[in-house]
Amino acid sequence: MKRFVSVCILLCFAVWGTIKAQVLTSPDGNVSLDFRLLSDGTPVYSLQYKGREVIKESRMGFLVSPEFVFCKDFEQIEERTGEADTVWHPVLGQYRDIRDHHKELFVALRQKDTGWLLNIRFRLFDDGLGFRYEFPVQEDLRNFTLKEEVTEFRLTGDHKAFWLPGDYDTNEYPTTTSLLSEVAFLTDSVRQEPLAVKSFTPDLAVQTPLMLKSADGLYINIHEAALVDYPAMQLNLDDKSFCLSAHLTPDKNGAKGFMQTGNVTPWRTIVVSDDARDILASNLILNLNEPCKLEDTSWIHPVKYVGVWWEYFTGQGSTWAYTKNQDIVIGKTDYTKEMPNGTHAANTAHVKEYIDFASRNGFDAVLVEGWNEGWEANFAYVKEHIYSFTRPYPDFDVSELQRYAAEKKVKIIMHHETTSSVCDYERQMEDAFRFMSEHGYDAVKTGYVGPIIPRSEHHDGQWMVNHYLRVVKMAAKYKAMVNSHEAVRPTGLCRTYPNWIAQESARGTEFESFKGNRPDHTTILPFTRLMGGPMDYTPGIFEGDLSVYGSNKAKLSTTLVKQLALYVTMYSPLQMAADLYTNYEKYPDAFQFIKDVAVDWDDTYILEAEPGDYITIARKAKGKDEWYVGGITDENSREATIDLSFLPRGKNYRAVIYADGEKADWRTTPKDYVIFSKKVNSKTVLKQRLAPSGGVAVSIKPM
Amino acid sequence: MKRFVSVCILLCFAVWGTIKAQVLTSPDGNVSLDFRLLSDGTPVYSLQYKGREVIKESRMGFLVSPEFVFCKDFEQIEERTGEADTVWHPVLGQYRDIRDHHKELFVALRQKDTGWLLNIRFRLFDDGLGFRYEFPVQEDLRNFTLKEEVTEFRLTGDHKAFWLPGDYDTNEYPTTTSLLSEVAFLTDSVRQEPLAVKSFTPDLAVQTPLMLKSADGLYINIHEAALVDYPAMQLNLDDKSFCLSAHLTPDKNGAKGFMQTGNVTPWRTIVVSDDARDILASNLILNLNEPCKLEDTSWIHPVKYVGVWWEYFTGQGSTWAYTKNQDIVIGKTDYTKEMPNGTHAANTAHVKEYIDFASRNGFDAVLVEGWNEGWEANFAYVKEHIYSFTRPYPDFDVSELQRYAAEKKVKIIMHHETTSSVCDYERQMEDAFRFMSEHGYDAVKTGYVGPIIPRSEHHDGQWMVNHYLRVVKMAAKYKAMVNSHEAVRPTGLCRTYPNWIAQESARGTEFESFKGNRPDHTTILPFTRLMGGPMDYTPGIFEGDLSVYGSNKAKLSTTLVKQLALYVTMYSPLQMAADLYTNYEKYPDAFQFIKDVAVDWDDTYILEAEPGDYITIARKAKGKDEWYVGGITDENSREATIDLSFLPRGKNYRAVIYADGEKADWRTTPKDYVIFSKKVNSKTVLKQRLAPSGGVAVSIKPM
Repeated sequence: MKRFVSVCILLCFAVWGTIKAQVLTSPDGNVSLDFRLLSDGTPVYSLQYKGREVIKESRMGFLVSPEFVFCKDFEQIEERTGEADTVWHPVLGQYRDIRDHHKELFVALRQKDTGWLLNIRFRLFDDGLGFRYEFPVQEDLRNFTLKEEVTEFRLTGDHKAFWLPGDYDTNEYPTTTSLLSEVAFLTDSVRQEPLAVKSFTPDLAVQTPLMLKSADGLYINIHEAALVDYPAMQLNLDDKSFCLSAHLTPDKNGAKGFMQTGNVTPWRTIVVSDDARDILASNLILNLNEPCKLEDTSWIHPVKYVGVWWEYFTGQGSTWAYTKNQDIVIGKTDYTKEMPNGTHAANTAHVKEYIDFASRNGFDAVLVEGWNEGWEANFAYVKEHIYSFTRPYPDFDVSELQRYAAEKKVKIIMHHETTSSVCDYERQMEDAFRFMSEHGYDAVKTGYVGPIIPRSEHHDGQWMVNHYLRVVKMAAKYKAMVNSHEAVRPTGLCRTYPNWIAQESARGTEFESFKGNRPDHTTILPFTRLMGGPMDYTPGIFEGDLSVYGSNKAKLSTTLVKQLALYVTMYSPLQMAADLYTNYEKYPDAFQFIKDVAVDWDDTYILEAEPGDYITIARKAKGKDEWYVGGITDENSREATIDLSFLPRGKNYRAVIYADGEKADWRTTPKDYVIFSKKVNSKTVLKQRLAPSGGVAVSIKPM
Repeated sequence: MKRFVSVCILLCFAVWGTIKAQVLTSPDGNVSLDFRLLSDGTPVYSLQYKGREVIKESRMGFLVSPEFVFCKDFEQIEERTGEADTVWHPVLGQYRDIRDHHKELFVALRQKDTGWLLNIRFRLFDDGLGFRYEFPVQEDLRNFTLKEEVTEFRLTGDHKAFWLPGDYDTNEYPTTTSLLSEVAFLTDSVRQEPLAVKSFTPDLAVQTPLMLKSADGLYINIHEAALVDYPAMQLNLDDKSFCLSAHLTPDKNGAKGFMQTGNVTPWRTIVVSDDARDILASNLILNLNEPCKLEDTSWIHPVKYVGVWWEYFTGQGSTWAYTKNQDIVIGKTDYTKEMPNGTHAANTAHVKEYIDFASRNGFDAVLVEGWNEGWEANFAYVKEHIYSFTRPYPDFDVSELQRYAAEKKVKIIMHHETTSSVCDYERQMEDAFRFMSEHGYDAVKTGYVGPIIPRSEHHDGQWMVNHYLRVVKMAAKYKAMVNSHEAVRPTGLCRTYPNWIAQESARGTEFESFKGNRPDHTTILPFTRLMGGPMDYTPGIFEGDLSVYGSNKAKLSTTLVKQLALYVTMYSPLQMAADLYTNYEKYPDAFQFIKDVAVDWDDTYILEAEPGDYITIARKAKGKDEWYVGGITDENSREATIDLSFLPRGKNYRAVIYADGEKADWRTTPKDYVIFSKKVNSKTVLKQRLAPSGGVAVSIKPM
């Protein structure tokens, strides 16, 4: 691996000038930003929290192809400051009301020799900083190609980091926790992880959202907001100086972004606090996204769903494919003349079983994977026209299921696995959404397994970033919600396009079936992946011993109760009860929590949090006097403290507590649980023991 | 430049075994093919014409990625021979009846170690050979990626060649005439030619159709037929052994074709004769294409057209763009609020002038370029959403023009310049054709200037080959004809998809405005580019001195009469009268020929031909007792001999002869012409002097 050191070292030799810094302070005074130009015209910023350095003076700007340095020789031609304090209401969310209170510094720069103009806009919140670059329309610069963004985040020391290795095509690595100085040593072994597609960064780099904790107890989260028409940012790591610097995802020819003046970059975000709970409570990234662009959002709704899915991973033999013929050709093969393989799960009768179950238990929808032509020979990359998105397999009666689901007041969730043959998907896309609209679907799960066609592109590059949003816009045209899997990690765009209801974009529950998740996994994700938006993590696995189905020896990395708690700790307005419905029928008392729990919220209370160790969150169900609490721990058992002071005063409630049993342990006895109820009020403080990789889940309703 | 020698040299060391050859002879006995397996299982073929060697024993097969040799170790498991003799009728063409008389040899091969199966099908005609590879469906081979096709064409000596240098993105080089041994020396200078996009082959290579002439007078043309779902073939040149070998156009990652068993390759074609006229008369390539796949072809018709086009090249200042604002953003810029630039040619009033002119003079259609949003900032490659294909500029009143054109019984030809932003075009494509259908358009000129997006692709690679055909199929859905410019060179697919009415795909008349065409240019093109199908060469320039318009000093490389003759010598069922209509009004007598000449034919007679020197062709207008003759010469004057024995016997006709005047010379007096008429019959032999780069055009009608 070649280390990326040149950009950071350059700065050490720069003449540190004495041009007066502009200082901006957050509304509560705790966070402050310095911006100035060095004597060679290099723009630099630094960030402090309660007087402690968070980001040391760090460079800003760009390298433009082929060889233009657009990060020095600037002079400042304009400066404006301002303050805004507004409240907005997400269509779906963790809070009914979100306050956006920030101070703003806008500086307009001109590069002396070229005359090129570059603006930088900073927004400083009580919980951190966002800044972006803006390219004003100008005569001498119009379309240009980025060689790199120079933005640095110069840390103050060898922080503890929760990191994924730099990769252009996947965010499904397990998270590694280590000091920054240990990343280089650990990266090679982390990259051994078997994944459908991997494209290593040539330089030592990590992905965002990057969660950091300094030795003196500062929690720092670095990510981006409003990633539109720009490549996703990875972070080069200089593990000597602890300087992080932007590493934009290139296309396969090395171009790092095709730009046009008049546009802006995403916001670079730094959330900071001395209390880990503030990181999870932060709305900074959402606040930096544009307000909702959809005029009508009445058709967007929270979704709790079950589906024909987990059985593909359990080892019981269910197949997405309808036949064994791997020589099928989409558009030519007449499937009605093919011999069925006898294991095709997405058949009408089986889907009806799920519809019946969903209807009986108050679920909104049933996901069906494997309904459409093409799964027999869905070879990635070597084949372009892999699937039809409008032709069901012969045993999936789309009209009958439409009728049946409507009668049962359940929606079927469409599935568009593209196997990353994206041009072909785009060709079929409008027909596919029209098909959905005509057949009563209002949500789709998209998938991008494997390497991308067009073959110049990576999952996290500008072209694909534009694609994902194109799908969301097309979906909105047909009033459909999108749950994208294997897409670039989110950056708060669900505010602007609330039909982008959730994403996967991280290591989800499916990896449990590959023995892939560790007990601390879900204590980290809210500090990393979820900073950008809701995740379709698909919790709810009750039968954690997959050997009951066949040869798969995988065992779940949690207790059963921790699976319940995830519905609260892993925020998403779209939540799956992922296990086979027959398993829920075996544990109806525990299943009651999944039936009850809300997925859209009026308010959220981060009660306890330490990344990699534990999280306890309480939330108030939207429009209801109901609260749900989830607490989880890593491999260590602990006692959660659940302070119910968020409850309205002077009123008693009935709490039902789903707790790990005395002998519960994820390794040996994950299904040992107890359920008991208790009268509680705003003065109650529950103390509840969590088993190793255990949890606690609580529902609170009026007496 | 790295020379490509390894593949060809390999053969010299192969053990030449003694396995008995299979011999196939053409119906007339003049052409014969030998096929056999060498003792190491390498398939080889050779070709003879009238007992003379045309292609020496040459290897066949493939290299498969990453490292599989699929061109030796074969055993033959089946052999079949046959003969077919049929007649078919093209929808549009040079002949009403085309005879397909060939013998066929089919061999099925199995590679001993791998068990992989490969079939080869040879078809031998009186004028040459076609063969293709077929990949049968089989258990152990399914999807695979080609590293190279090994097919060789081992020539017998240092032939004279009419060649374009190997290039993945353009076929707009001028043709160079030289010995094969001179290609290497000349290639670098030919590649200096300024073109919108160039991607040199790394190896010494030339493009097809490649026209060759041996020292002993054999004319040999190498090309391919039915290029579908496969990259276009270039030919590596070993200029020591004179071995040509297939060089498939790769994608930018180096992959040379993504294959699936069940498919076939294009046909490799070798047309051969000792009379150059037979090359032009050959229908071998059409015969190797599939019959027409369109059920209804009633809407396909020949097109003679004028248009808003040449004025963009003359230097008179007409612009495709409507404004001077280069910061426009398609979908955001409100053009009705933009200041017009005053030079936008595609405005309603000006288009009406062309409609009036077309209507007065019997033209079918008016091409209008520059009608749609986006031309101000149509930067290739750095920008993806360049044009709208459904939003006209404010001064182009699409509804009024639809009404006006219909009233005048003229069609407007749509223009889709993509600037090679192909994904974006595909996204808009169905809307664009629907828009055409709704507004009365039945033909579109497409364009692919500049490098391709997706950025992994070349103009001549498999992905784009599939794209061009996708456009043609979409067009057929909306009953539209396609005239594609800057697309891969044609391979006879106009038989299968007759709405693919013409292509440019070579250096057309527009290069006259860049001083780019040589006097011999059009004496070569019918032997090269036109072997694959009709070309929209856009002849008919009367005013050849562009300095009359402004600062452009270019002068036409032909006499005026040669421009007339091109309507006959350059076959196309779609022909433009490319000059400004005002120039035709100045020369109504000469213009009469363009008004009269047919563009679809019952029969064609190649009277005289020598590549690079001269061509004289007569054709019978489809369904009419009218004949048109065109004769052209290179920079040397000559006397054309026009033997009218093709006329029905015993009947007299009126011939109108458009001839170069006595002082005519392309360099000094191109517009010196004479027109005279003469009584002729089947015994008449006209002798007509052609000026340097001059021509003769004759119309023959009943008295």
